[in-house]
Amino acid sequence: MDMINLENIIERIREIMDDETNEQLKEELNGYHVADLADIFQELKPDERLKCFTLLDIDKAADLMEYLPAQTQVELLSDIDEELASKILTRLPHDAAADVLGDMEDDESETYLDKLPHKFSEEVRELLTYNEDTAGGIMNPVVLTVNSDMSVQDVLNHIRIKAEQDNMELYYVYVTDKQNHLLGVVSLRKLLTSPINQKVEDIMISDIVKLHVDDYSDYIIDEFMKYQYNALPVVDLYNRLKGMITWDDVHDLFEEETTEEIYQSSGISTEVVDEDEILTGNIFNAIRARTPWLFITLLGEFVAVNVAHFYEHTLTALPIIAIFMPLLAGLGGNIGTQSITLMVRGLSTGQVTLSSAFHHILREALIGFLIGGLFGVLVTFATWGWQHSVLLGIVVGVAMTINMTMATIIGTFTPFALKAINVDPAVASGPVIATTIDVVGLAVYFSLVTLFLIRVF
Amino acid sequence: MDMINLENIIERIREIMDDETNEQLKEELNGYHVADLADIFQELKPDERLKCFTLLDIDKAADLMEYLPAQTQVELLSDIDEELASKILTRLPHDAAADVLGDMEDDESETYLDKLPHKFSEEVRELLTYNEDTAGGIMNPVVLTVNSDMSVQDVLNHIRIKAEQDNMELYYVYVTDKQNHLLGVVSLRKLLTSPINQKVEDIMISDIVKLHVDDYSDYIIDEFMKYQYNALPVVDLYNRLKGMITWDDVHDLFEEETTEEIYQSSGISTEVVDEDEILTGNIFNAIRARTPWLFITLLGEFVAVNVAHFYEHTLTALPIIAIFMPLLAGLGGNIGTQSITLMVRGLSTGQVTLSSAFHHILREALIGFLIGGLFGVLVTFATWGWQHSVLLGIVVGVAMTINMTMATIIGTFTPFALKAINVDPAVASGPVIATTIDVVGLAVYFSLVTLFLIRVF
Repeated sequence: MDMINLENIIERIREIMDDETNEQLKEELNGYHVADLADIFQELKPDERLKCFTLLDIDKAADLMEYLPAQTQVELLSDIDEELASKILTRLPHDAAADVLGDMEDDESETYLDKLPHKFSEEVRELLTYNEDTAGGIMNPVVLTVNSDMSVQDVLNHIRIKAEQDNMELYYVYVTDKQNHLLGVVSLRKLLTSPINQKVEDIMISDIVKLHVDDYSDYIIDEFMKYQYNALPVVDLYNRLKGMITWDDVHDLFEEETTEEIYQSSGISTEVVDEDEILTGNIFNAIRARTPWLFITLLGEFVAVNVAHFYEHTLTALPIIAIFMPLLAGLGGNIGTQSITLMVRGLSTGQVTLSSAFHHILREALIGFLIGGLFGVLVTFATWGWQHSVLLGIVVGVAMTINMTMATIIGTFTPFALKAINVDPAVASGPVIATTIDVVGLAVYFSLVTLFLIRVF
Repeated sequence: MDMINLENIIERIREIMDDETNEQLKEELNGYHVADLADIFQELKPDERLKCFTLLDIDKAADLMEYLPAQTQVELLSDIDEELASKILTRLPHDAAADVLGDMEDDESETYLDKLPHKFSEEVRELLTYNEDTAGGIMNPVVLTVNSDMSVQDVLNHIRIKAEQDNMELYYVYVTDKQNHLLGVVSLRKLLTSPINQKVEDIMISDIVKLHVDDYSDYIIDEFMKYQYNALPVVDLYNRLKGMITWDDVHDLFEEETTEEIYQSSGISTEVVDEDEILTGNIFNAIRARTPWLFITLLGEFVAVNVAHFYEHTLTALPIIAIFMPLLAGLGGNIGTQSITLMVRGLSTGQVTLSSAFHHILREALIGFLIGGLFGVLVTFATWGWQHSVLLGIVVGVAMTINMTMATIIGTFTPFALKAINVDPAVASGPVIATTIDVVGLAVYFSLVTLFLIRVF
């Protein structure tokens, strides 16, 4: 469903809402895939959304919840009657229910938890005790477990009963002992292709890739990216199976992580303020997230101002040289940012490693020198033609070449240096380097001018 | 396995390589998970890597291939003897084999294709006819299909034979007619929880989310992100099932797409040059990818130079004002980049839509005004204290506030404007806006100086 289709659909739904019966609206809405409904709901006004939501079949409404943003989930549940809300909550996987309840005010979530079936609310309460950025806070505690001495046929029978009854996600079957210690894992594929009288312990894998309840989301993403499994089991300190995390959980984490990486590249801090707050939340949270690196830029640029001030006599003697300052700073900053971007991203994906730092610094310096040389020649001729001074042209051109070469070196060196001292290169690189390049670039330019131009003019 | 562990492991492997027998090295290597082996191989020197590779069990070697970067795959296959290479290739899933062969020189891949079993090489050849960025080029053509009149028990029996024999990935069972038209899909979970004598047509889903062989990778990613399935079927123009794409294929696509998005934000073009080439390939390809936007920046900065030149008399009258140029340009550029980053990322994830453009422009303008106001006051006092001129301080401070406010407006408006005319905001925003902010910022600053300062001094 693309953008244009979506607009047409919204229009049709609004027409049905205005002109036709609720029955017809109900039929229309229940015909969509929940992922499409989520797109539709995003475009509807809150009152339209609420009306449509109450017309959905209850299973569809519960399915839909998982595709909606947290804020919309909470709004919808608060606006429908509590009976219906409780019914929907119990139909959600435990981790999804915990996510919604965790986003509510404490007293509101308590009200719901008291109304939910005891076993369900107990399990959800346990999930809520974990930090929401750790495996414990992300996992689904409902996992299909079997004993190691069961046969394949036993397991298939067991699945037939349990998986239906508990609305279980099913990718792997986990083998545990009586105290729920994790012993092994069997994929459904293995299960379906093994002789039915074979013992589980003979087909299970015992070298298990697993997560710990306290593992943080970035580690979880790394593990999923590396091993490429659809689901990983989560255990506690004593190797007791507590739940599992599936690909679709990680997909959300991954998108968040990417957003953080991109935000940080322009000096927007996601440490102090939740990522969602920055784009749409309280405006003062957005300011808090954005000001720190801007302030560091401010301090850095004051150094640049002082460098320029140091050459005040040069400026007074030859004011024309000032007009080239933005040109030099702009291109130095730009090519330096390219180098940073390549290194920070490369370090993040693993394409670039600390051991190859020297190679990359040399490579980038060469690229900076070649592009800088080309641009230097262009600038020399342009300035010569415009200001009728070949010497001025050469000074600006040479400054351009040196600036761009140094910008690539600084832009490549700094992320490696930060990585080497265990500071996240994504956080600090952008604004600091831009300022450093300004400072160094100005010093080079004014030195050249003072050396070669002042006596001549 | 973290960085420190990895270093220790590499060290141990090198010790075994030097001091112990091949048997011991073989035992050590085969004990690792292939994902860990991939990390280890990345750190080894080419000759060490080759030696280790030949010691791996053949199934492990084949598994490992899929975790290695394309370049390493091709290198290893070219360096081992052709017999072994062919054996490994036939053990790969078809899509993985096609990927490796597609990365080789044509005559080299032809040599292999001629040696491989006929059926396998035919299927791989067909895959190679598709564009590698489309569903056809990404999919695995080996899919488990069943007829609609089979019972659940029939299907389970069928899986037991077929899945093992063809080394099939197994997430869903696809229901097709005799001409291989896709009729429905059954999840393994549904299969395992339905009565064994039920007909497949009664439990299959017929509203199938599917991909077309010619769909491009960005569309594929969007579909996977939206519907959150583990696998999607791929059909041709006539709805005939051609293959399927699984989450782990998309994971690689997604990482590439993210890299492109991040590269583009700093004006590194991934249109003309393959993404891998930019970081490690031929240096002239890297220059080709980076120069176009730098050149546009160059043109833009010449406009900025002209603006400054227009105020040459002001500069001559009061050279001190030149020293504040980097300060104003630096902070305007920085906060403007933050706005661009937020909008481009928001448009990409769907958190920001065209219909909310006006709201975001206002919000960013307010943020720019508040941060700019704060910084303006700071700069006013700093300049006043330093240069002992309250008027100079005020002019620089006011210019700072106006600059930062305008930078946020330009940085927010431009991505929306580009999106509205169907230009990818990620491509054009960064360098163009930085330059625009330089030009506008200088004009504001020099106007203020000319109006309020020149007569006074």
